[in-house]
Amino acid sequence: MVFYLQDLAAGPNATVVAPVAGINGRVWSFTTFGSIFVVDFPVTLSISPASELVGQAQGLLIASALDGASVNVALSIVFNNLQYNGSTLELQGISRRHENYREVSVVSGTGKFRFARGYAVLETAFFDISRSTLRLTITIQTN
Amino acid sequence: MVFYLQDLAAGPNATVVAPVAGINGRVWSFTTFGSIFVVDFPVTLSISPASELVGQAQGLLIASALDGASVNVALSIVFNNLQYNGSTLELQGISRRHENYREVSVVSGTGKFRFARGYAVLETAFFDISRSTLRLTITIQTN
Amino acid sequence: MVFYLQDLAAGPNATVVAPVAGINGRVWSFTTFGSIFVVDFPVTLSISPASELVGQAQGLLIASALDGASVNVALSIVFNNLQYNGSTLELQGISRRHENYREVSVVSGTGKFRFARGYAVLETAFFDISRSTLRLTITIQTN
Repeated sequence: MVFYLQDLAAGPNATVVAPVAGINGRVWSFTTFGSIFVVDFPVTLSISPASELVGQAQGLLIASALDGASVNVALSIVFNNLQYNGSTLELQGISRRHENYREVSVVSGTGKFRFARGYAVLETAFFDISRSTLRLTITIQTN
Repeated sequence: MVFYLQDLAAGPNATVVAPVAGINGRVWSFTTFGSIFVVDFPVTLSISPASELVGQAQGLLIASALDGASVNVALSIVFNNLQYNGSTLELQGISRRHENYREVSVVSGTGKFRFARGYAVLETAFFDISRSTLRLTITIQTN
Repeated sequence: MVFYLQDLAAGPNATVVAPVAGINGRVWSFTTFGSIFVVDFPVTLSISPASELVGQAQGLLIASALDGASVNVALSIVFNNLQYNGSTLELQGISRRHENYREVSVVSGTGKFRFARGYAVLETAFFDISRSTLRLTITIQTN
C-alpha cells in the first residue's frame, strides 16, 4: 500500500504541527531534546496534495535524541474515505533526520487492519519552502 | 473478556484525568487540538463501580484531531487483582467522539498476555452527570 | 538478547531524563501523577558503562499511576553499532517502582527486527548514588 503524507504549511487542509511540551526555558523544536509535538497530517492517494484524501495521520512526534539525530514517531493513520474508511493503522518508531529512507513499525490496526503488523517506509517525495510530501509505503501481514 | 472502565468524578476510587500539556494560551480540552491528558481509570469486573476491581487503565489521551472528532488513546491495562494479577495489556488507537462503538488495538501484553494482539471495543454502558462507565470487550490471540 | 541500560548522572555519555510536562503547580517527578519525562539512555553490551555502546533507548516515561506505584514506559531501542546497527525495537508497558523484576512488551521492531514481538525484562544490575544500570533481557519472535 502506498499513500502520501502531506505536510502543508498553509491552506484549507493545512497540517497542524503544534509544540505542546518541552524543557522549560528552551525553544521547542524537532532538534531540541525533550520537545513534544502533536500532529495532524492529511493522507492522500497520490503525491499531489489536491489528490483524493484517504485519511489523517494523527499523534505525537517526540524529540527524544540528545543529539537531535532522530525523533520518536507515534501516529495513528485514521482512514476516513474510500476502501479503508473506518479502519486505522498504528505506527511507531524512530525517524532519522538525515536519511531519506526512514522505516517505522506498524504495530497494529483496527477494522480491516485487525491483527496487522509490519513496517512502513517514509521517503521524501516532494519538498519546497511551502510544503513537503512524504511517500508512505506500508507492508503488513494480518494473520 | 469483558471489563468495565469507570470514569468517576469523585469518591475513594475516583478516576484521575489530568491535562498536562497543550497549545500555549488555549484551554486544554479533549476537543482542543494539542491537549495531552494523563489518566488513571479503575477497571472493574461488572458495570457497577462498586464491583470487584481488577486493575487500572493508565496512560495518555491526546487530542490529535484538528477537527476534535477523535482522540488518540495509549493505555496500559494493569491487572492487580484476581486471575490476571500482575499481567498487562497495551491498548493503542483512536476513539471517535461521536460513535458509541469505538475500536482500538491491543498491541501487546505481558505476563499471561505475552505475545497478545487483537482489538478492544469501548462502548458506553452507563452515563449520568456524576460518572460514566465504558464496557471494554477485548478479543486477543496470544500465539 | 541481553543488553544494559545505563542511567548515568554525569559524564560524556550522560543519560538525559527531562521532565517536560505535568500538572500545573506541582513538582514533576516519577511519583507525581501526570508528569511526563523524555529520556535518552545509552545501551551497552556489558554491565560496565564503559563497555561497547550498541544504541540508545529513547522515548517517554509517564507517571500515570495515581498511587505512584508504576510508570508507563514507551521507548525505542535505537541500535547504532555492531550487529543490529540501523534496526530498532519498540518497548511499551508498565514499570513497577518497587519490584526488581519488571516486564514490558516488545510491540514491534524495524530492520532486522521486522515483525518482532515479545517481552523485555528490566532488572537492576548496579546501583549507587551516581548511576544505575538496568539489565535488559529481550525475548522475541519475528515470524
